[in-house]
Amino acid sequence: MLEHGGNLDLAVQRFGGRAQDWIDLSTGINRQPYPVGEVEPRYWSALPSRSDIESLHEAAQQAYTTKARIVALGGAQVAIQLLPSLSSRGRARILAPTYNEYAAVLSAAAWDDVAEVSNLEALAGADLAVVVNPNNPDGRRHHPNEFLSLLPRVGRLVVDESFADAVSGLSLAPGAGPSGLLILRSFGKFYGLAGLRLGFVLGSEADIAALAAMVGPWPISGAAIAIGRRALLDREWAKATATRLARDCLRLDAEVRSQGWQLVGGTLLFRLYETGDARAAQARLARGQIWSRVFEQRPGWLRLGLPGNGTEWSRLAAALSR
Amino acid sequence: MLEHGGNLDLAVQRFGGRAQDWIDLSTGINRQPYPVGEVEPRYWSALPSRSDIESLHEAAQQAYTTKARIVALGGAQVAIQLLPSLSSRGRARILAPTYNEYAAVLSAAAWDDVAEVSNLEALAGADLAVVVNPNNPDGRRHHPNEFLSLLPRVGRLVVDESFADAVSGLSLAPGAGPSGLLILRSFGKFYGLAGLRLGFVLGSEADIAALAAMVGPWPISGAAIAIGRRALLDREWAKATATRLARDCLRLDAEVRSQGWQLVGGTLLFRLYETGDARAAQARLARGQIWSRVFEQRPGWLRLGLPGNGTEWSRLAAALSR
Repeated sequence: MLEHGGNLDLAVQRFGGRAQDWIDLSTGINRQPYPVGEVEPRYWSALPSRSDIESLHEAAQQAYTTKARIVALGGAQVAIQLLPSLSSRGRARILAPTYNEYAAVLSAAAWDDVAEVSNLEALAGADLAVVVNPNNPDGRRHHPNEFLSLLPRVGRLVVDESFADAVSGLSLAPGAGPSGLLILRSFGKFYGLAGLRLGFVLGSEADIAALAAMVGPWPISGAAIAIGRRALLDREWAKATATRLARDCLRLDAEVRSQGWQLVGGTLLFRLYETGDARAAQARLARGQIWSRVFEQRPGWLRLGLPGNGTEWSRLAAALSR
Repeated sequence: MLEHGGNLDLAVQRFGGRAQDWIDLSTGINRQPYPVGEVEPRYWSALPSRSDIESLHEAAQQAYTTKARIVALGGAQVAIQLLPSLSSRGRARILAPTYNEYAAVLSAAAWDDVAEVSNLEALAGADLAVVVNPNNPDGRRHHPNEFLSLLPRVGRLVVDESFADAVSGLSLAPGAGPSGLLILRSFGKFYGLAGLRLGFVLGSEADIAALAAMVGPWPISGAAIAIGRRALLDREWAKATATRLARDCLRLDAEVRSQGWQLVGGTLLFRLYETGDARAAQARLARGQIWSRVFEQRPGWLRLGLPGNGTEWSRLAAALSR
């Protein structure tokens, strides 16, 4: 099993306490979730209907300002799992450092020419090229036009926009549709509902039809349909949330300045700091039962999500001042 | 898209009305669902943790009285979707008539030697053999010993126990584990929570590890973990439900006797009748906004789920007496 954020089991195992007492800043999941509200009984009891799934697709198209073909899946991760089945085995290139599941899933499916590259240009010539935009964990961004000029030079281009919500002008979703371009969207991160398991893929008619066939007739839960649709149509909430997150990012950057940590980059949902010694920084925060993300390959890097309320900010400040 | 039960969209399209006013007896989903209750906020917001998933696995092992390896998936359908990736392409034989997704999924994955057979013996020699037990839609049952003697004569044997809950002595789950044997369990049908998207596969260590790798680290929702675990451990509810369903089966069989329909077979969750003209029978029930399942290949067959409460029984009686 790969190392991921959100592994509170590991925090408890290494530093003790009960999972529910920890503040999990090891992920990029918004800690002020969209209100779940009431879920009508039929969403629990009945199989998701075609018309309900279609209405969720329409809500997502509206939220992502696109008319492209779309399919809802049980999280962006499901789309990653399906990449080896969608594409013929070949030369895969991944813009790195980035989310570790791409290389792992392709290698597990016996792709033997999988490599990480450090700049967009080096993706040219790949049968399958992968970019996370903005990137996790360093927040690196590419303008949509850069992808459009890369597209003719790769077999298939996957742009993972898991952290692109509410970042204006960054998303390729409005331009989705051309053959070879696949755009992944996560629902759970920005809406703070990772447990719901919901994500989307936008792409060409052929690719979306192929993915839909792979996941079968009931790929998501009734609750994901009911809550997801409501949330995606609530543009007021999204706007207010984006404003709050932008403010909280600045607050977190200021908060850690006392530690001498340098901001490497980030998105609206997490910040990446060069700490000199991330294991030590993680252990210090852990003594205040705050969990963070470190990266084996980058011993100085510490990634922090944003605290969700006043209590969490206070506990973070206290942990940092020890 | 294949024809399935639960397609109220089609009922509304053909016979009018609003989906919520229909009584959907076109599926084998229990219409007295397990009470969903409160779902703790963390199950919505956080990624499902390894320890939570493990505790769900343990609850399922207890409910299915097995110590075999198990993996939770977003419905038994997900396991069907993954069969072509788990097995090398070869000769597939399916005991028919049965659930139509097996042949469809294998054919879609370019398996070109897929055939239906009419008796268990004819599965011998297959690379992949599939039996639904008890069978959908005709309720045909095979004793576990029959499978154990078949197992050495096939490459892989899939036993789909989606309707085996609370049928004593029928399940192979206690004997799961031997290489080549894969057992599928549905959660949503017996517990009446098909919208939750939860199912399990039991099998050998290698097969379960392979399936787990295919679905990735977060294959089910937090709500599926919380509600699924609670339900699976509630043996009192399961016992009471089995008693009620058995009684309701007899009641339904008696109810339709006036129509001259002959019972073909069934399970605790649905009954299959030979009606002479199922399209006509379906249309008559549809005028009372009761939806049923017909089968293109068997023009006389009508499958009915069990009404969930007094109002539904009355509406059924009224529709039948028109």
